[in-house]
Amino acid sequence: MPHILILGGDGYLGWPTAMYFSHRGYDVTVVDNYFRRNACLELDTGMLYPVPTLVQRAKIWHEKTGNEIKVVIADLQDPAVMRSLFSGSIRYNWAVNEEFSGVPEVVVHYAEQPSAPYSLINHRYANITLTNNLLVTNNLMFAVRDYARDTHIIKLGTMGEYGTPNIDIEEGWIEIDHKGKKDRFLFPRQASSLYHTTKIMDTDLLWFGVRMWNLRVTDLMQGPVYGIETEESKTDDRLRMIFNYDEVFGTILNRFIVQAVADYPLTVYGKGGQTRGYLNISDTLQCVHMSAETPAQKGQLRIFNQIMETFSANELAEKVQRVGKNMGYDVKINHIENPRKEAEEHYYNPTYQGLIEIGVNPHYLTDEVMEGMFRTVVKNKSNIRTDVIFRGIKWG
Amino acid sequence: MPHILILGGDGYLGWPTAMYFSHRGYDVTVVDNYFRRNACLELDTGMLYPVPTLVQRAKIWHEKTGNEIKVVIADLQDPAVMRSLFSGSIRYNWAVNEEFSGVPEVVVHYAEQPSAPYSLINHRYANITLTNNLLVTNNLMFAVRDYARDTHIIKLGTMGEYGTPNIDIEEGWIEIDHKGKKDRFLFPRQASSLYHTTKIMDTDLLWFGVRMWNLRVTDLMQGPVYGIETEESKTDDRLRMIFNYDEVFGTILNRFIVQAVADYPLTVYGKGGQTRGYLNISDTLQCVHMSAETPAQKGQLRIFNQIMETFSANELAEKVQRVGKNMGYDVKINHIENPRKEAEEHYYNPTYQGLIEIGVNPHYLTDEVMEGMFRTVVKNKSNIRTDVIFRGIKWG
Repeated sequence: MPHILILGGDGYLGWPTAMYFSHRGYDVTVVDNYFRRNACLELDTGMLYPVPTLVQRAKIWHEKTGNEIKVVIADLQDPAVMRSLFSGSIRYNWAVNEEFSGVPEVVVHYAEQPSAPYSLINHRYANITLTNNLLVTNNLMFAVRDYARDTHIIKLGTMGEYGTPNIDIEEGWIEIDHKGKKDRFLFPRQASSLYHTTKIMDTDLLWFGVRMWNLRVTDLMQGPVYGIETEESKTDDRLRMIFNYDEVFGTILNRFIVQAVADYPLTVYGKGGQTRGYLNISDTLQCVHMSAETPAQKGQLRIFNQIMETFSANELAEKVQRVGKNMGYDVKINHIENPRKEAEEHYYNPTYQGLIEIGVNPHYLTDEVMEGMFRTVVKNKSNIRTDVIFRGIKWG
Repeated sequence: MPHILILGGDGYLGWPTAMYFSHRGYDVTVVDNYFRRNACLELDTGMLYPVPTLVQRAKIWHEKTGNEIKVVIADLQDPAVMRSLFSGSIRYNWAVNEEFSGVPEVVVHYAEQPSAPYSLINHRYANITLTNNLLVTNNLMFAVRDYARDTHIIKLGTMGEYGTPNIDIEEGWIEIDHKGKKDRFLFPRQASSLYHTTKIMDTDLLWFGVRMWNLRVTDLMQGPVYGIETEESKTDDRLRMIFNYDEVFGTILNRFIVQAVADYPLTVYGKGGQTRGYLNISDTLQCVHMSAETPAQKGQLRIFNQIMETFSANELAEKVQRVGKNMGYDVKINHIENPRKEAEEHYYNPTYQGLIEIGVNPHYLTDEVMEGMFRTVVKNKSNIRTDVIFRGIKWG
């Protein structure tokens, strides 16, 4: 079976992705430096439930399924670490078989600082975001260039790279007809946070590598993800993903459901007309899997818009309120002053067909899905700290 | 008079810029960490003549003109250094008057790793380029945001950000009409080196800052610069700019003239149809000065294409050959295998009107200009090391 390397394998998406591929017979290696956990400690954000270390989770997964997920705890900003994953000189922090798994056929790159508010706390957090995200991406690009040019890089981008333009958003590319001549370009991008701007930079960096060295890259422009379980996480509670419900690391729907359960009015920023594309965490796994199964060509930067449906912040709040009420929660909605600078009412018409064309079967945000999320959050209600939900990090 | 802060004040453009503004009555502060000199030592590139340290040059300038250029030797990747230039806690390495000059009205940002081949020597040099260029730009943006939102940032970009598209290149912006709707975007950019890609990132970063915090930014998309003297450098030979003639740091025309004098065949890469926009170093100074005198508005990212005329590599080589022959040099042209990956024949039609409209008076590449460069190079002929001219750093 192919060998898949998952960078950022401890995170909200990384660990579920590791189990998903392991369950389907892939050889899986995960790498993480616990950036997210350390940042949660430093910012005192809280988590909905405790999560064992990555090594502990890999051991539990092995006990339960017999499958091995090799673990490396190290910082991928260090090029020597990144390169050792391709040259074979890596030493695993945990593995059943200590031998090198070989050059990976696929790398999934989640190893980024993923929070817009984090990136704008102050100049230091902005620098951490820039340095981490650009160096990890560059180290990956050069390692693949130098050791494994056939390896398929699946990099997580974000729909936030496009911002909210007044024209329809295509899947990554646009043909421009200008003064009687034509050319094809990356779709214009202008993001509304420093984090999202680093994702634009990542895309530019890998597009450079694709053109120079014929690399294979799939860029998944993902919208905010929601969900608290996957088929594999149901195996054992200790295998659940890291779940944040604070303003810094908690995505909007996850956070709203926790707020509903905690009797904390839903915090809609400004007018609430901010429209984005969303997807269930199970669909993230499907999208990454289908991308891995149908790799980009050599010299291709293949871009998919990874969302399944669009909602405004108001629509999400109203859904949570309605489903919450049906379950006995008196959910309030509070329109607060927007700490961000962003359009609160805007045109938004993105295309998202490519992933469905390669075989992804979308799941939608039904009442049943939301009720399931409510039930899981309720079980952990005693862990919710209302003091960490809203911090008001301002865009300045 | 206004206070101007010049980041990268020791470099090929930085020091002449400092003298130019000082001569025109500005209060000038220069900052540099000697990155360029250290890189030249490390890569053993040689220089056409020795150049005194920045402090020594500031002292000589003061002796000759009575004008003070304050000097800071420090690394602007450290946010504390950058912020001290705005908060007033900076300590000068040299100054006549040790008191803080005050918040600068204008900052000229040259403090970047400026070489395409350097950025592609290997992954380490790529990382140095990314980290230096992005952190310095980000530290500047946050310092201006936090201490001096009225300060006008003049940032040097490069025409290389646009690459060689098959459509006419506008001055930074383009209106796109797509499926019946319109919006205005940054002109599409895709560069052909890692260095040039970091310049795209710089632009994206400052465009973010302009939108979020109403900063004033002028981005000068400069082409390769040529020239070896300015009005101010003629004051004393010790005030001349750093002049490189090697493949890494020497720009094409400067290098070709040194090659002609050294009887080293001109190294044209591949077919030689690579067309770029060029300008005289005196015009760089004019462009920066006119930009400073007519600042960008608050909330405006103003972009100018800073070139005065376009030539192909073949045209430059033929000019050097012809002028050299008239001066008694038997100049040969050698078409060598292209170490870079780039289009060797392509459409190229950039606009460059904005700087002329704000008062820049262009100088062109006449035979007289080239003869003057030949004469200065000949005086220093004994310093030319032919072993460092061509190194063949491959794009890989």
